[in-house]
Amino acid sequence: MPNRKLLPCLFSLFLVMSVGLVQAASNERPKPRNVILIIGDGMDDHQITLARNYLAGAQGKVTLDEMAVRGSVQVLTVSDRDPNKAVYVGDSANTATAISTGTATSRMRIATSAQADKDLTTIVELATQQGFKTGIVTTDSVTGATPAAFASHVSLRFCKDPTQMTGAKVYDRIPFHCEPDMKRNGGAGSIAEQLAASDLDVLLGGGQKYFQHKGEDSSLTILEQAKANNFHLLTNSSELSKPQPDHKKLLGLFHEKVFPVQMMAEHERAAEQPDPSFLNYFHRYLGSVEFPEPATCVSNPAAQAVPTLKQMTTAALDKLSHNNDKGFFLMVESASIDKESHIRKPCGQIGELEQLLETVELARTFADTNPETLILVTADHGQAAQLVPDGSMYSALNVPVYSPGHIARVITPEGSVMAVNYATNTFVSEEHTGVNVPYFANRQLPEPLPTMLRQTELFNVMTGFMGIHTPQ
Amino acid sequence: MPNRKLLPCLFSLFLVMSVGLVQAASNERPKPRNVILIIGDGMDDHQITLARNYLAGAQGKVTLDEMAVRGSVQVLTVSDRDPNKAVYVGDSANTATAISTGTATSRMRIATSAQADKDLTTIVELATQQGFKTGIVTTDSVTGATPAAFASHVSLRFCKDPTQMTGAKVYDRIPFHCEPDMKRNGGAGSIAEQLAASDLDVLLGGGQKYFQHKGEDSSLTILEQAKANNFHLLTNSSELSKPQPDHKKLLGLFHEKVFPVQMMAEHERAAEQPDPSFLNYFHRYLGSVEFPEPATCVSNPAAQAVPTLKQMTTAALDKLSHNNDKGFFLMVESASIDKESHIRKPCGQIGELEQLLETVELARTFADTNPETLILVTADHGQAAQLVPDGSMYSALNVPVYSPGHIARVITPEGSVMAVNYATNTFVSEEHTGVNVPYFANRQLPEPLPTMLRQTELFNVMTGFMGIHTPQ
Ligand SMILES: [Zn+2]
Ligand SMILES: [Zn+2]
Repeated sequence: MPNRKLLPCLFSLFLVMSVGLVQAASNERPKPRNVILIIGDGMDDHQITLARNYLAGAQGKVTLDEMAVRGSVQVLTVSDRDPNKAVYVGDSANTATAISTGTATSRMRIATSAQADKDLTTIVELATQQGFKTGIVTTDSVTGATPAAFASHVSLRFCKDPTQMTGAKVYDRIPFHCEPDMKRNGGAGSIAEQLAASDLDVLLGGGQKYFQHKGEDSSLTILEQAKANNFHLLTNSSELSKPQPDHKKLLGLFHEKVFPVQMMAEHERAAEQPDPSFLNYFHRYLGSVEFPEPATCVSNPAAQAVPTLKQMTTAALDKLSHNNDKGFFLMVESASIDKESHIRKPCGQIGELEQLLETVELARTFADTNPETLILVTADHGQAAQLVPDGSMYSALNVPVYSPGHIARVITPEGSVMAVNYATNTFVSEEHTGVNVPYFANRQLPEPLPTMLRQTELFNVMTGFMGIHTPQ
Repeated sequence: MPNRKLLPCLFSLFLVMSVGLVQAASNERPKPRNVILIIGDGMDDHQITLARNYLAGAQGKVTLDEMAVRGSVQVLTVSDRDPNKAVYVGDSANTATAISTGTATSRMRIATSAQADKDLTTIVELATQQGFKTGIVTTDSVTGATPAAFASHVSLRFCKDPTQMTGAKVYDRIPFHCEPDMKRNGGAGSIAEQLAASDLDVLLGGGQKYFQHKGEDSSLTILEQAKANNFHLLTNSSELSKPQPDHKKLLGLFHEKVFPVQMMAEHERAAEQPDPSFLNYFHRYLGSVEFPEPATCVSNPAAQAVPTLKQMTTAALDKLSHNNDKGFFLMVESASIDKESHIRKPCGQIGELEQLLETVELARTFADTNPETLILVTADHGQAAQLVPDGSMYSALNVPVYSPGHIARVITPEGSVMAVNYATNTFVSEEHTGVNVPYFANRQLPEPLPTMLRQTELFNVMTGFMGIHTPQ
């Protein structure tokens, strides 16, 4: 086996060199080089298949299926206790960090290294330093783990605002400590404070509530700090669709926290536990079982309060490409594919995946007229939802065979029923999985992209394409 | 939306035309054109990730990751009651039929159409008719659903030998009928009889027991019928490695039924149910839970009785490429990735995936010296096994959070523990899943392969590459 540690560096070097050669060989003035990174949180192949079957039918294709390049990404996580030790399932914090910094870290960490807790420079920071514009768009709070890992550094994803920095805090009953990241301790403050102080040109999503607190040792709220840092504030869709001030950066905070999702099952039903008859409690081959009634997906009226992912991305692309000879880096996240799978809601997952697809379509249209644009679409990690037979494969045996977890049965527009199994635990929130996730690209670099990348290598692909120099 | 039904035909036409143009443009004598199709039964991305983490480490790559082309395949199944209706999860019979014939059918069917029960011509039959050599290699019984669907036609996968053709038979308590396929009813007989009468040049695998019966209305056993049809019989590994008679076809039957698998957990342990403490029965937040002890994977001594998939494929490639100017079609199946996932044995799955990887490596070496060889690797359908966190993501909450199904904890050679969840049911055998599966190819056609294919389009890719004319 060749030296594994060296390979990513060589690969990165190769990318930077080839971009250089391409530019040197051309006599034209180099065109702006843009990367649009679109992350479907939790969007593994199961989630894509669920969405395809629903949105396009079993014989159909979705826009991801029309991308020129498709490969897989090995999700990378390490142990905080022993950073040389592999952990096989990650969370959005460490996996977004792998993509944004090129370094594998431990769960919960936002652009900081495992154990040593060193700040890891992100592609957004490098791009800004080297003259590119940068943007982040998400349906999550902008302080969520995925966006945060591109433009802030804290040891734990829960250090979102100044009220969460002191004392042992508990989130979902997990105790955590943010003190080391406080300004008074030499840190950069909470995630919201770091975002408000950042050089981002565009930051759109939810999470107003995190910006309403006073900054640490400051008389200003974080929102006021952001305005002092030349951010122009948007809070609703109609403001978003207007022309934006030229010399201001954009901060859109369109919701208190996470956006409401676009789609839901009628009566907001989640997956339910199959209901075995009384006899079945005595022996698993006795009695019968009732599966949940099939569910129809409908629009969620609450989603009208927020812009769509496509609307936000349209505004971001306008802003970032305006008067820009150098290029930009834009990260766009459809956040609630993951969140809806955690709470066992397939209609919600499908609706948020549809939002992602519309945004990919938009990005492809942008790339048609901006050819030096690399669109990369990927997921950060896998999710629990599995597409399973509607009724067991063994139903002809006349014994009750059913999932020990939760099952949803979704009626598809083509008139079949799609059964979705959630059975990684029986807690209020399902687990992530460690499956390798797909990636899609609209083009080669021009040298062919590898069909399989370690998650950290996505960083090399993006910086390489843009010609960003990375510290070694 | 353009006419969906027309697209596959146009695609096929395009392939045949481009092969024709390439050959016409060249003045050289056309080289033999070979297709090696390697099917990992149940080998979806979860199963590949499990194998990668175990065999190469989280940072490692397996030979599939080095293939030039990677895409995904939408598994296709239809309802037997209404062949226009999509079914979202298939079995090996209908999915192998989609690949071998280019037509989506219903579960359990072997190269016959849904409802109408028409025989569907397979790529093996077309290739033979058009002067190519053909072979099938499997670790399953050669009468198993996957190999059977390439060279026989029955309405149900269980119609394996003459004893299973009469009366309502029950398999795993499923009643089924094979009479319509009997010779006296105008059918072609059981799967074993059809294989014995076939034009295959090579057929290697397990399933001796199905060939020991007398053929329908015959004084000969099926094995004797095969010999009368110019098959040379091999029954052990040492016979396999010897030079084979030139003018005979090869029938290798190396085991009674399915091959024993290469790897197993110590003490043959399968995944086990987590064991909650007494208090936990009162409320899911009370008490504690014990997970199964971690398991070490070891070699299965029983596997020494049979050749490896690589040994069989070596013999098949020798035979098929010998004195062959035209080319060949070879289907190779690693069958027990699926079977071991059904019975919740991750070590078994990994060992059988390793067999597949060794065989892919062999095929790649063959293609190095036989450039007009297309290697396609894919799965027929997804499987239940999921890579999950070792201990819940929510374990810091001090409430017992655990899978409602079965969990195995595999110690990996790099020294971590990989937790595998099996929770599609609590029956003796897990369900398949409907996830799209990956495909890999060693080369383009030369025109680029689509990054996403419907399962039936694999048939078009293969026949197109070989220049096989298909009936419309
Ligand atoms: Zn999550
Ligand atoms: Zn199976």
